Amino acid sequence: MNTIKIGLFGFGTVGQGIYHVLKQAKNAHATIKRICVRDISKPRATDLPPSLLTDRQEDILDDPEINLIVEVIDNADAAYGIVTTALRRGIDVVSGNKAMLARHLPELIDMQRRYNAALLYDASSCGSIPVIRNLEEYYDNDLLLEVKGILNGSSNYILSCVFDHGETYGQALDHARRLGFAESDPTFDIGGWDALFKLIIITVHALGEYVAPERIFTYGIQNIHEADIRYAREKRMKIKLVAQVAKVSESAFTMFVMPEFVGPEKYIYSVDDEYNGVVIRGECYDRQFMFGKGAGSLPTASSILSDIMARRHNYRYEYKKMAYLDRPAYTTDVTLRIYARYGTTDIPSLLPFKKITEMYMSEGSNYVIGDILLSDLIAHRRLLDASDIFIANLSRFFSDRDISH
Amino acid sequence: MNTIKIGLFGFGTVGQGIYHVLKQAKNAHATIKRICVRDISKPRATDLPPSLLTDRQEDILDDPEINLIVEVIDNADAAYGIVTTALRRGIDVVSGNKAMLARHLPELIDMQRRYNAALLYDASSCGSIPVIRNLEEYYDNDLLLEVKGILNGSSNYILSCVFDHGETYGQALDHARRLGFAESDPTFDIGGWDALFKLIIITVHALGEYVAPERIFTYGIQNIHEADIRYAREKRMKIKLVAQVAKVSESAFTMFVMPEFVGPEKYIYSVDDEYNGVVIRGECYDRQFMFGKGAGSLPTASSILSDIMARRHNYRYEYKKMAYLDRPAYTTDVTLRIYARYGTTDIPSLLPFKKITEMYMSEGSNYVIGDILLSDLIAHRRLLDASDIFIANLSRFFSDRDISH
Repeated sequence: MNTIKIGLFGFGTVGQGIYHVLKQAKNAHATIKRICVRDISKPRATDLPPSLLTDRQEDILDDPEINLIVEVIDNADAAYGIVTTALRRGIDVVSGNKAMLARHLPELIDMQRRYNAALLYDASSCGSIPVIRNLEEYYDNDLLLEVKGILNGSSNYILSCVFDHGETYGQALDHARRLGFAESDPTFDIGGWDALFKLIIITVHALGEYVAPERIFTYGIQNIHEADIRYAREKRMKIKLVAQVAKVSESAFTMFVMPEFVGPEKYIYSVDDEYNGVVIRGECYDRQFMFGKGAGSLPTASSILSDIMARRHNYRYEYKKMAYLDRPAYTTDVTLRIYARYGTTDIPSLLPFKKITEMYMSEGSNYVIGDILLSDLIAHRRLLDASDIFIANLSRFFSDRDISH
Repeated sequence: MNTIKIGLFGFGTVGQGIYHVLKQAKNAHATIKRICVRDISKPRATDLPPSLLTDRQEDILDDPEINLIVEVIDNADAAYGIVTTALRRGIDVVSGNKAMLARHLPELIDMQRRYNAALLYDASSCGSIPVIRNLEEYYDNDLLLEVKGILNGSSNYILSCVFDHGETYGQALDHARRLGFAESDPTFDIGGWDALFKLIIITVHALGEYVAPERIFTYGIQNIHEADIRYAREKRMKIKLVAQVAKVSESAFTMFVMPEFVGPEKYIYSVDDEYNGVVIRGECYDRQFMFGKGAGSLPTASSILSDIMARRHNYRYEYKKMAYLDRPAYTTDVTLRIYARYGTTDIPSLLPFKKITEMYMSEGSNYVIGDILLSDLIAHRRLLDASDIFIANLSRFFSDRDISH
């Protein structure tokens, strides 16, 4: 085991966290040799030897002493360029870029094999919660039934402000922005995309199947309205933005990201504020629940550090489940029970419900509860963006037992 | 990767669970070649080919085709004999025997190195929760501060009956016995020994230090009394049997098993019934919480299966932290704040409290709350077994923040 010499791309909050954590971790046997940033002239708070910094990618990629590249930049396209260049040269990479990974995983898996280089990315999903590593190593058998959780801290923080602290959605969003939990353009978080990308990565390691983002139903919390919050409160539930992948039969699985009504008997009900929580369900072990900080400088940095240490011991993902002969196939031919609140848009006639079980109409807003195929939701996805519409999941379709627990 | 041919020792609930799980797991590439039981003539429910069974250990240990021994027998001494014989012959072993492991880990670690054989035992601690593997692999740096949890399902089940379902302690114990959650002699569980053994194993993987059972303060829930339950309820707390290991300074750590008053703001408050829950705290990732079924036939079997699969990929514990140069040293020179309820035994004068902060006397029972050295509790350990005494932890000593969360 040699000392790891790191070339770090990106010195934002996570990059600075890694620098800080590595200085603290006396037994890490890893040092940062060079840091590539976009703007080298920017003033930096950290006591950084100026010689560490560069704005030329080649200073890292061409340095034969650097044996691990850690990539924590925001831009997915730039990250893709760095990661693929490194892998092609046989240099190992640790990345936290979920958007890049979710879009390019099949190619990146292939490149790892072809160029005999390892790519680790546990930090990309749920920050400090070791979901990927556990799915890859521990829940390494075909008894896994479901992975379901709150994977996005920003949207969860906003929903917590609403449900636990009585703020309006607008107040909560402002609040989250002020605390740095939401970007100035929060679509990535509250639109469900961040959770979707994590779910795609998780599914590769849970079931050995890659599904491209555009094939998956994704619906965020942008359109949530006082009426939805009131409805949830009346039923003593909270609305959470939930990502899930689940087997629906021996040979098929489905996955989606959408708001869900969650009652207090479920584990994820108590995942509040910026925390993430993941429930892993298997045939034998029943439910495992993992809970922790999903984002932030130091939790993400400590997850990156775990990946760095894993490389020191030559750990790599083996993607064993992708080699299984009887992998389940992705399906959207699944019936969901949903709540759909609407104003002027005539949801009951525009959405092809198989069955409507409840309808409510009032002056301010209306809702319908009914059964609908996931494939029909996907087909009508654009309709659901209308600002007078909000839908949320009420399904319990994967088993007779209360599966969402 | 070859098919694993297993020699199984023990065919009780866990052994039968393994048989069942392996039949279900199509991609396990592992088969049971022989099962060694104590009484071969005993009628068995499972549809077992009779040729699988033997009562001679040599039929497994001498079989050159068997490349993995799975040991799930009750008897710690017999388990020790089987495991050491196998390791000496270079045969890999998966074991769930916490009593055996907690007593013999240093020797067993040494034997793994000397004979180049692997011993895996994730099932020994918290059943289906992958605590060991995560401490060994993921929390693999010196930023770990504390591991704390409910490690024994039986005692937790009893306490849940008391606190959540209003049963008396006697009713709850009967209840647990009827459901098979407690042995006919429940001392192992309710006396804290089972939790202690798990804590010892966890500490080896958390901090790289082995501490022998007799050096660790262990106090169970046998003496819990209506007055203690009332006291906890008045403070809106539950009493939980908690095992913890924590760094108390840069260079020292302490560990113990004892009942603790736990408020609703803490993660382990909601770990009820036969479940286990573990909080792992680090400097950067803050708190991680893992929750799941800690015992039972199938959860334990599925954990054993994970170890079997790990061997298929040549995984072994590397005990990296034991090689760290600046490992913290075990100390009992730590001040705890405890609640001590007593009847006729004069606890305030018999126990060397450094400071008493509260005293309460009544006709029925009395209690004192005060600060005492852990080493003094150990020195007076026998006194605390008196049936009119019950103590529980109230400390928050590891940091200024609420560390037990």
